[in-house]
Amino acid sequence: MVIVVTGAAGLIGVNLVGRLLADGHRVIGLDNFCRGTPENLVTVAGHPEFSFEKVDLDNLAAYREVITRVHADTTIDEVWHMAANSDIPAGVDDPAVDLRDTFMTTYNTLVLMSELDIEILAFASSSAVYGDLGDRALQEDSGPLLPISNYGAMKLASEAAISAAAESFLKKAYLFRFPNVIGVPATHGVVLDFVHKLQATPEQLDVLGNGTQQKSYLHVDELIDGMLFIRKHAEAHLNYYNIGTDDVGITVRRIAEQVVNRVSPSAQLCFGTGDRGWVGDVPKFHYSIAKLEQLGWRPQLSSDEAMQKAIDEIARQEGFT
Amino acid sequence: MVIVVTGAAGLIGVNLVGRLLADGHRVIGLDNFCRGTPENLVTVAGHPEFSFEKVDLDNLAAYREVITRVHADTTIDEVWHMAANSDIPAGVDDPAVDLRDTFMTTYNTLVLMSELDIEILAFASSSAVYGDLGDRALQEDSGPLLPISNYGAMKLASEAAISAAAESFLKKAYLFRFPNVIGVPATHGVVLDFVHKLQATPEQLDVLGNGTQQKSYLHVDELIDGMLFIRKHAEAHLNYYNIGTDDVGITVRRIAEQVVNRVSPSAQLCFGTGDRGWVGDVPKFHYSIAKLEQLGWRPQLSSDEAMQKAIDEIARQEGFT
Repeated sequence: MVIVVTGAAGLIGVNLVGRLLADGHRVIGLDNFCRGTPENLVTVAGHPEFSFEKVDLDNLAAYREVITRVHADTTIDEVWHMAANSDIPAGVDDPAVDLRDTFMTTYNTLVLMSELDIEILAFASSSAVYGDLGDRALQEDSGPLLPISNYGAMKLASEAAISAAAESFLKKAYLFRFPNVIGVPATHGVVLDFVHKLQATPEQLDVLGNGTQQKSYLHVDELIDGMLFIRKHAEAHLNYYNIGTDDVGITVRRIAEQVVNRVSPSAQLCFGTGDRGWVGDVPKFHYSIAKLEQLGWRPQLSSDEAMQKAIDEIARQEGFT
Repeated sequence: MVIVVTGAAGLIGVNLVGRLLADGHRVIGLDNFCRGTPENLVTVAGHPEFSFEKVDLDNLAAYREVITRVHADTTIDEVWHMAANSDIPAGVDDPAVDLRDTFMTTYNTLVLMSELDIEILAFASSSAVYGDLGDRALQEDSGPLLPISNYGAMKLASEAAISAAAESFLKKAYLFRFPNVIGVPATHGVVLDFVHKLQATPEQLDVLGNGTQQKSYLHVDELIDGMLFIRKHAEAHLNYYNIGTDDVGITVRRIAEQVVNRVSPSAQLCFGTGDRGWVGDVPKFHYSIAKLEQLGWRPQLSSDEAMQKAIDEIARQEGFT
């Protein structure tokens, strides 16, 4: 199969590319290096079945030029659209970020797939589409869907556009609703923030909010496993799945303590107030993964185990032996 | 109060403007006359508390110029955003129509409200956000939300953006999920289509699909009643309501028969095949309006009564006495 992966230089993209190559596919990676980096691609860059194009997906003409050229050279079978803004607070400050990077990249992907008759799309959606439903276990059919961040809003907008496209021209579509995903290469996120803060001030770690925000986490290796399992086994025309753990997650306090233990054991923890780190931060969420379990897959690692593994990997990435 | 109504020259807009003026508000209408017409405004044009600006809401700079000037002259208290593509099949043929007219008009409205600290927004959403949930009665918290038209997708995208804005800067937001709305001035829709067809060929009426598509309809007068009732009585920060009848609706066949009776009784009815008029047409839907009834309002007219009334009004509009 010939597969395009957008956002190929990000955490999820590069791990997905590696796995698809290992499975024997030809892979074309796209990224604008806005948040992903060329260094992230080092593990896949030399592979004979991998090629890469630097392009802004929000620029339809530039995106069309690249994808038309690639498609003429080797017919594209499917697109895995992983590109998005991954910095949720940035999108809270400026809605244009998520309009452009999270939604218009999806819209343009659909326009070009329609033009070129590429009929299979896998999409990186998010738990953020659910907004804040409190303590309810989030099932795929839960409603209402009232996101509280522009990131969540533009992920839901993307799902909606894909759903309409599935009615019109897509043969198969997959909406993967990601939880918080951790691993390396880390480009952003709470663990990397904490590590960077501790590199700057090894004796003190300031935490946004009161530390009680609690979320579930999935290691990127398991996320890729889950997506490929769904791609292989789900048989609906439009498939939508939560991928994650069904534990209640771990608190920011716990993460902070673990990062301090790993990289700067003598540091003091200093907490702010409030149970949200920023406007649009969902303080708690709890997935139901019954639908995915019924299909036959569940993650091996709990949120806590996934976080432990990722903290160690990210500490190494940042130079802590 | 000083109220901006977007899409003021459309069916819903002009009726809303009339009612707001009658209630003693100052109203500024915006429209680009893309689908609404200057003639539609004749009933409100001379009112001393009404002013009108022709502007493309998808052009942020032009929209900003107008709204900033209006706001400097007389502080805007709230915005009723009714502007959208209203031609669903047009958006099926070209997703850019609903991106521009249904979603970007909402996005730009939010950008400008944020810039000018206008904190109350009422929005014309749609039953189309629910997609095709089969025979289920559509409740406001029903899921999943998987629209099957670009129109529905961009209405859901708009709801999502408003929901995120409610978390960040809006003080009150109202999402009104409209059913099919009928009345005059009619600019599009099944009844006007049938009347126009019968004007062209008085002896025959060709109907898209097999005539079994069944939908509920609300008369525009009642829609305005319902919106103003919710605006007055709903007290949540973000209020979302189905407005409509809870009957199972009426079939296209019934509408066609009624239109023929009214304007060309000797015409033969000719049906197509299939239960959908176009890609993205939801063949049946059935609202629950329990939430709105609990607030204290329900429509007086059934779908059939609303349709009878509208057919008569539209026939008169088109010159049938």
